[in-house]
Amino acid sequence: MEKFELTILGCGSALPTTRHFSTSQVLNVRDKLYMIDCGEGAQIQFRRSKLKFSRLNHVFISHLHGDHCFGLPGLISTMGMLGRTATLHIHAPSDFEQMLNQQLEFFCKGLTYKVEFHPIDTKTYGLIHEDKSVSVYSIPLHHRIACGGFLFKEKATLPHIKREMIDFYHIPLYEINRIKNGGEWTTPDGQLIPSHRLTYPADPPRSYAYCSDTVYLPHLEKYLKGTNLLFHEATFMHEDLSRAEETCHTTALQAATLAKASNTKQLCIGHFSARYENEKLLLEEARSIFPNTILAAENLTIPIK
Amino acid sequence: MEKFELTILGCGSALPTTRHFSTSQVLNVRDKLYMIDCGEGAQIQFRRSKLKFSRLNHVFISHLHGDHCFGLPGLISTMGMLGRTATLHIHAPSDFEQMLNQQLEFFCKGLTYKVEFHPIDTKTYGLIHEDKSVSVYSIPLHHRIACGGFLFKEKATLPHIKREMIDFYHIPLYEINRIKNGGEWTTPDGQLIPSHRLTYPADPPRSYAYCSDTVYLPHLEKYLKGTNLLFHEATFMHEDLSRAEETCHTTALQAATLAKASNTKQLCIGHFSARYENEKLLLEEARSIFPNTILAAENLTIPIK
Repeated sequence: MEKFELTILGCGSALPTTRHFSTSQVLNVRDKLYMIDCGEGAQIQFRRSKLKFSRLNHVFISHLHGDHCFGLPGLISTMGMLGRTATLHIHAPSDFEQMLNQQLEFFCKGLTYKVEFHPIDTKTYGLIHEDKSVSVYSIPLHHRIACGGFLFKEKATLPHIKREMIDFYHIPLYEINRIKNGGEWTTPDGQLIPSHRLTYPADPPRSYAYCSDTVYLPHLEKYLKGTNLLFHEATFMHEDLSRAEETCHTTALQAATLAKASNTKQLCIGHFSARYENEKLLLEEARSIFPNTILAAENLTIPIK
Repeated sequence: MEKFELTILGCGSALPTTRHFSTSQVLNVRDKLYMIDCGEGAQIQFRRSKLKFSRLNHVFISHLHGDHCFGLPGLISTMGMLGRTATLHIHAPSDFEQMLNQQLEFFCKGLTYKVEFHPIDTKTYGLIHEDKSVSVYSIPLHHRIACGGFLFKEKATLPHIKREMIDFYHIPLYEINRIKNGGEWTTPDGQLIPSHRLTYPADPPRSYAYCSDTVYLPHLEKYLKGTNLLFHEATFMHEDLSRAEETCHTTALQAATLAKASNTKQLCIGHFSARYENEKLLLEEARSIFPNTILAAENLTIPIK
């Protein structure tokens, strides 16, 4: 199975603690890296997770609170020092463009590569990026400022070859890619063997959704249906619901309710408030509704199946 | 002896590594904290060192390379979330004022406290801050952009009381502070006892100098004479001298030579290039010239005697 995995770089909320870095994650799709949010220290955590800067071409910023983007100038500047030449694409709410340019102008004069800004409309669901490996959609969230989540849909992979059939028909190796792509094989005596007899069906494409920061929005269900992995913020315990609503955040119980309603396969909760010393309580609360829940943790890598 | 100690928050150089945070330190003078440089992650390290944000009122920025100031927006914003009301004073090269204001305007709207900017003239040696505990002087350095070091001179402390003399003359407790400040004591039979007979001399005031980033400048000796602790950057080994000169940095051997020439009591080297896996080699090189050298390390606290 091709690589489709999430690495958590930081999963704390606004106030940094000794336990958590602020928000940042990296989705690895077939060894291409997509960063989601970039809180302070993201580049340090990126290194600690042994990820490669050269594989990172896209950064998606959900909203412009500092704990989701203060790590960007450092990351950009480090990649410059490493002699990067490939364009880096920053997808973020449009307000950020001017500020980012001012920072780059001040701190990153003579950068060896281009930083290209792509404004996100956080109010609508829609395709914001597409390449050979994934399609990325924005998910409209509701927070104290404009904020959008992200849905990553893996592109269809090729079918798997049936090794024994290849051997049986003595098909040369250089033909395999053509056959995987649907080509047929003609035997020396003129018999046509269709691709589907020579291959097993491709793995179904996987998906990953990121919803942070946001108040609980039950209607997100329609975007999240059948997601393989959902990361949802669970800043608070449900006993602190009024605080969650006041600050436009979600409780662990609410995140789990959404995961269940949308038939998500696995839920990962994070963006923990600094007030909870024991995050297991958040986990237990979520699991009471949606058992296949895990807690985010720094440098944790979650293979998405 | 009153508190006068340095805590290293980060001592790496421009490229972050898994071993080091970028540059930041805190000088604790009688429980008032003075931050020197504020690289990315400084606020995280500040917490890890169990320092108190409420005791920090002054931040001194040596120069405007990102690895010395990218942590500032996060620090300022966190102190706002903690409900700070006291003014925070930022001392930095003047170019920074506009950028800082733009960042605060964008990320820290409605901050609960004032951030006051104090421009530093990095070209001259001079007093840049004074309060009851310290005088702070700027030290002109030479780097690729305007850069200044800092010399912290502890204010004179009061003499120590001679407990046995106080007992002998039955001097009441409320008189002690007056006597420490030079007041005399009149015995019931009219005899005048001068302050110096009732006290031991005060501890000599201590000093701390910070020189980073800079090419080796032998003439700094005149500012550093007799410093109790000198932090000097030692980005490179002396075998990489040409690289040091090219990038306006110092070698371990040069830092030690300056410490020796200026009769510094203790030298701490840091700002290590990411290229050296084994920093003990930098230490050995420095100690070959100036034995009382130590290596900076994250969360290391050095009492200054």
